[in-house]
Amino acid sequence: MKLKTTSLLIAATLFGAAVAPAQANNDAMVDLLKVLRDKGTISAQDFDLLTGAAKADKEASEEIANKVAKVEKEATTISLKGGHLKIKSADKAFSAQIGGRVMVDYASMNEDDLGGKGNASELRRARLFVKGTAFTDFGYKLQLDFGSAGKDGKSVAMKDAYIQYNGWKPAKITLGNHKMPFGLEELTSSKYITFIERSAASEAFGVGRKNGLSIGTSGSNWTLKGAVHMNGTLANNSGQDEDFGYGARVTFAPLSEKTQVIHLGAAFHHQEFGNEAGEELQLEVRPEVHTAGKIFKSYEDKFEDMNQYGLEAAAVFGPFSVQAEYVHASFNAIDGSEDQDLESFYVYGSYFITGESRKYKKGEFSRVKPKSIVGQGGTGAWEVALRYSDLDLEDNGLGNAGDVTTIGLNWYATPTVRVMANYTSADVDGEDDDFNAFNLRGQIDF
Amino acid sequence: MKLKTTSLLIAATLFGAAVAPAQANNDAMVDLLKVLRDKGTISAQDFDLLTGAAKADKEASEEIANKVAKVEKEATTISLKGGHLKIKSADKAFSAQIGGRVMVDYASMNEDDLGGKGNASELRRARLFVKGTAFTDFGYKLQLDFGSAGKDGKSVAMKDAYIQYNGWKPAKITLGNHKMPFGLEELTSSKYITFIERSAASEAFGVGRKNGLSIGTSGSNWTLKGAVHMNGTLANNSGQDEDFGYGARVTFAPLSEKTQVIHLGAAFHHQEFGNEAGEELQLEVRPEVHTAGKIFKSYEDKFEDMNQYGLEAAAVFGPFSVQAEYVHASFNAIDGSEDQDLESFYVYGSYFITGESRKYKKGEFSRVKPKSIVGQGGTGAWEVALRYSDLDLEDNGLGNAGDVTTIGLNWYATPTVRVMANYTSADVDGEDDDFNAFNLRGQIDF
Amino acid sequence: MKLKTTSLLIAATLFGAAVAPAQANNDAMVDLLKVLRDKGTISAQDFDLLTGAAKADKEASEEIANKVAKVEKEATTISLKGGHLKIKSADKAFSAQIGGRVMVDYASMNEDDLGGKGNASELRRARLFVKGTAFTDFGYKLQLDFGSAGKDGKSVAMKDAYIQYNGWKPAKITLGNHKMPFGLEELTSSKYITFIERSAASEAFGVGRKNGLSIGTSGSNWTLKGAVHMNGTLANNSGQDEDFGYGARVTFAPLSEKTQVIHLGAAFHHQEFGNEAGEELQLEVRPEVHTAGKIFKSYEDKFEDMNQYGLEAAAVFGPFSVQAEYVHASFNAIDGSEDQDLESFYVYGSYFITGESRKYKKGEFSRVKPKSIVGQGGTGAWEVALRYSDLDLEDNGLGNAGDVTTIGLNWYATPTVRVMANYTSADVDGEDDDFNAFNLRGQIDF
Repeated sequence: MKLKTTSLLIAATLFGAAVAPAQANNDAMVDLLKVLRDKGTISAQDFDLLTGAAKADKEASEEIANKVAKVEKEATTISLKGGHLKIKSADKAFSAQIGGRVMVDYASMNEDDLGGKGNASELRRARLFVKGTAFTDFGYKLQLDFGSAGKDGKSVAMKDAYIQYNGWKPAKITLGNHKMPFGLEELTSSKYITFIERSAASEAFGVGRKNGLSIGTSGSNWTLKGAVHMNGTLANNSGQDEDFGYGARVTFAPLSEKTQVIHLGAAFHHQEFGNEAGEELQLEVRPEVHTAGKIFKSYEDKFEDMNQYGLEAAAVFGPFSVQAEYVHASFNAIDGSEDQDLESFYVYGSYFITGESRKYKKGEFSRVKPKSIVGQGGTGAWEVALRYSDLDLEDNGLGNAGDVTTIGLNWYATPTVRVMANYTSADVDGEDDDFNAFNLRGQIDF
Repeated sequence: MKLKTTSLLIAATLFGAAVAPAQANNDAMVDLLKVLRDKGTISAQDFDLLTGAAKADKEASEEIANKVAKVEKEATTISLKGGHLKIKSADKAFSAQIGGRVMVDYASMNEDDLGGKGNASELRRARLFVKGTAFTDFGYKLQLDFGSAGKDGKSVAMKDAYIQYNGWKPAKITLGNHKMPFGLEELTSSKYITFIERSAASEAFGVGRKNGLSIGTSGSNWTLKGAVHMNGTLANNSGQDEDFGYGARVTFAPLSEKTQVIHLGAAFHHQEFGNEAGEELQLEVRPEVHTAGKIFKSYEDKFEDMNQYGLEAAAVFGPFSVQAEYVHASFNAIDGSEDQDLESFYVYGSYFITGESRKYKKGEFSRVKPKSIVGQGGTGAWEVALRYSDLDLEDNGLGNAGDVTTIGLNWYATPTVRVMANYTSADVDGEDDDFNAFNLRGQIDF
Repeated sequence: MKLKTTSLLIAATLFGAAVAPAQANNDAMVDLLKVLRDKGTISAQDFDLLTGAAKADKEASEEIANKVAKVEKEATTISLKGGHLKIKSADKAFSAQIGGRVMVDYASMNEDDLGGKGNASELRRARLFVKGTAFTDFGYKLQLDFGSAGKDGKSVAMKDAYIQYNGWKPAKITLGNHKMPFGLEELTSSKYITFIERSAASEAFGVGRKNGLSIGTSGSNWTLKGAVHMNGTLANNSGQDEDFGYGARVTFAPLSEKTQVIHLGAAFHHQEFGNEAGEELQLEVRPEVHTAGKIFKSYEDKFEDMNQYGLEAAAVFGPFSVQAEYVHASFNAIDGSEDQDLESFYVYGSYFITGESRKYKKGEFSRVKPKSIVGQGGTGAWEVALRYSDLDLEDNGLGNAGDVTTIGLNWYATPTVRVMANYTSADVDGEDDDFNAFNLRGQIDF
């Protein structure tokens, strides 16, 4: 008898751990009772009663262990990590995120300056979004901007409204309203851009969001994305075919480490105007302050279509970074009008006094996390930056050209709270007057 | 002494389980120690020390068990089951759900066709909603459609904004903006309709959502709902009484099983126009493509009120289903105008090649869940469908009549992702020209 | 040997509880095995095997205890307490809340009365908000009102869009669109106001929400808040400096207990109009019914700036409460126009038949919780109230003056569901006609 019990104990010791799930067992008690019974220390009656009690203890322990295991296995989890509300099912087949951003701007301009509109405040962006994944392979995003929602009847702006298929990894197929693949600064979220506004050079030829279909794929240091799109997000009731376009962007990072990056990119975009009705089209660009007037203008004319290409380069070396883009656009005129060739470029440098690096991932820049966070005993990160933008919207002796210089100081209080100050100065060739503005932004995203 | 301990053990075995909550107890240890003390195996001093240690173990176990029990009893749970974000309090007195839908459409039409507007894309619906229950008996829903939110100043459309009282079961009382009880296709959510658009026949006389009060009740195979409503969701600044209306709908399902359904329904609706100012009113209906022109039109005239009734029938037999509705509307003219009697009907059939059945519940059709789900190793469900709609908006020799035929192919990738393709052809009596369109939709709801 | 083991047991008993974390231990078993081994009851081999089994049991228990502890320490919690969806990180550094309100109104007016617009319904408010805290010291809120979102192109109204810094306790710094510090009734949320609309006296000189910066602080029975602001939430494209303003409010509560309150307050506000363009400005106020016409009017003239001050008093004695405010505004004319001095006051009393008290906190009134809640076996709370408002918008013999009397009955079904009925009667001095309306509201917030 003794041998038998001991043999069982040995077997349990050898194999038990491997087969038993992790749970409170009370096996030692049952084993001890057997030994005591075999030795005659306790009676058979006591053994039965005590074994019964031990089993009850064990069942109670198992019930708790099962409950904990069930929670671990099945529970949908919710997180506010980094200030972002994310929900995820235990099997990761489903997720959801609810978030947004608030950006409030205060600009000081002289109303007598070129493009000056006087001092002005603005809710530059006030966005809400919901995004998620469903049944593993599908995703969606709906993002709205209420920044211009106000008492004078202005409306909400549609940002993202798309469905995504992620089942053919690493490719992603996106259908609906979303950003078209053109321009490094344009593709960098407004949460992460280095200056209060994107460069006039980017704005002039930005493609932005369109209702269409894109297919993108990427490797560890390259990305490739192609897209076709219709013109807009709205029903076309003009009685003409809606305009369409298509384009592609490729990026390559010969160096892509955490704080050391070299990024190269190129993109092409074609936009059809159709223009059977002979409508006139004109580029009008602000001097990098959103409440200013549009001082850069191409000559208004009638076009059939437009082709543009862009080149991108950026580098990060620890706290230093530089970034530059060049865009050339050829507008093809309809009969009786003249073709136009326009171009723009910008270049900027930024330096984190507090040692952070701009973060790069898959062909885009993303969130900078200060090393020292306000609210966690820290003081935030500080960045200085300088940008020069040059626009040539002149051709055939018509339209104008000019440049914008912006000096910026950014304080990243936390990863999601930023205060920005920009001083902006702009010239239009041939104009005596110039544009000057001081602009402040408070920003949070969630 | 021994007897005493054993008696206690027996008593514990008999009654213990019934009174003890499920938790790790360590009772066996305490019992064993008593036995060993009684037998003299361990000393009284050891007994006291060991009993103390056993009690400490027991208390620690109980603390964990209590924590687990507390979570079970009090924790608010969050779920993403089926892709829908739902939160529920442990006592079920409170719940909340956050969701929405995105539908993107691409229509190909010839701009020279009757009603043709050229190729067009559209964010047909981009909705967000929050709904919930509070204090057991009350509910609410707020649902907005941002599909037309865009750069040209178009606005958000209010869908649901209501308060509900559920305390008089099975009745539900709803106050605010919500769907009025008229029309099977109209009451079926756009997430679940069989074709990209509801039939022209339904659209012509649809009542849709109004700001009002409804009371509905239902049994296992019938529903009854009555409603009174004001005209709109907006302040009336015209200096006249806002128009009102009322109506009711009853449905009965002689057969109501999971994949076998026969549905019958009837509804009535009265709309007051007041019309002291003698405003003219005209029905205008699109040929079942939302970006097309309105080609079906009644004669514009001045009316005092309108009465309409509708008849509904539908059947599901496994993968097959048929559905039909008829509406008759009588417009009562004010002096100097003429009464009009108008009518419409549609009939359609659908067949799931992959064997699913349309799901019916309480007088409405709801979500089809494919047997085979993309992202879970499956390939989705396929449905083919054909619909014929007939409108007669002609009376007194004025207005027009016509019909629309739509053939549809639907792919349900998952329960919440659907791709739809429709070919639509429409005729207006007496017009040489006709309407033809090919329409595609990508859809997700969450 | 025995002594040694017992000594260890004594030491463990004395010190163990203090150093051991709360978890299931199985220490009693190991201790017992040592005693039995020392006494020779079990063999050394059995001791080793049994000790191994006991340790395995212990490890399993610890694993569960650790999991439970981890959940306690790290888990983000979600709650629907009181019907409000709140999420909080375990360390409380992050939180988020998603909510809103729905208010539906039905007004009965005679369209032949002064200001009468006929019977009218309205979605008075249909709001959604997201607010939260991030990294302990920062907060944000984004709140939108979709009540006027409808088919006629009306738009969403921006309510709150701000960033908050809470790191200098007890001060709060708020930047963005938020309520300026002026007026007790104006600062009381529409969820908690005693009548369906705020008094005409408050509306006439209300400052409401502006895009600006405020700093507020408070003690146990006082508050102080100052603010500077720009005029609006929108870009100013008029080519003039945007108007600005500033103000401050102080409150003091000589008595501030749960059901016994005396509140005193004073506020000042300056609004610059600039008005280089010589635009005319006129106050127009409704008779406390939102769908009625604006019957109270100042004389339209050209002003350079405006200064106004307000005095507040309120008291709560159990179920009784009274509240009154007085505002005086001085409009300073530009050359060629005349200055205007205008004023208004209101006073009201309210009584909870069911014994509740209006709740006061830091210079504002907040949510009343009925003692008896519908859905939890109760019947709700009942309140009757009477208000008299007096406006003097007349100066230099121009503009008009008048008064409004409102009697109200409120039923608080639950803390978040309220039904309100108001009968309102208004007079304009010198007009034969008067205004009368019966107004109903259903309200829920979440």
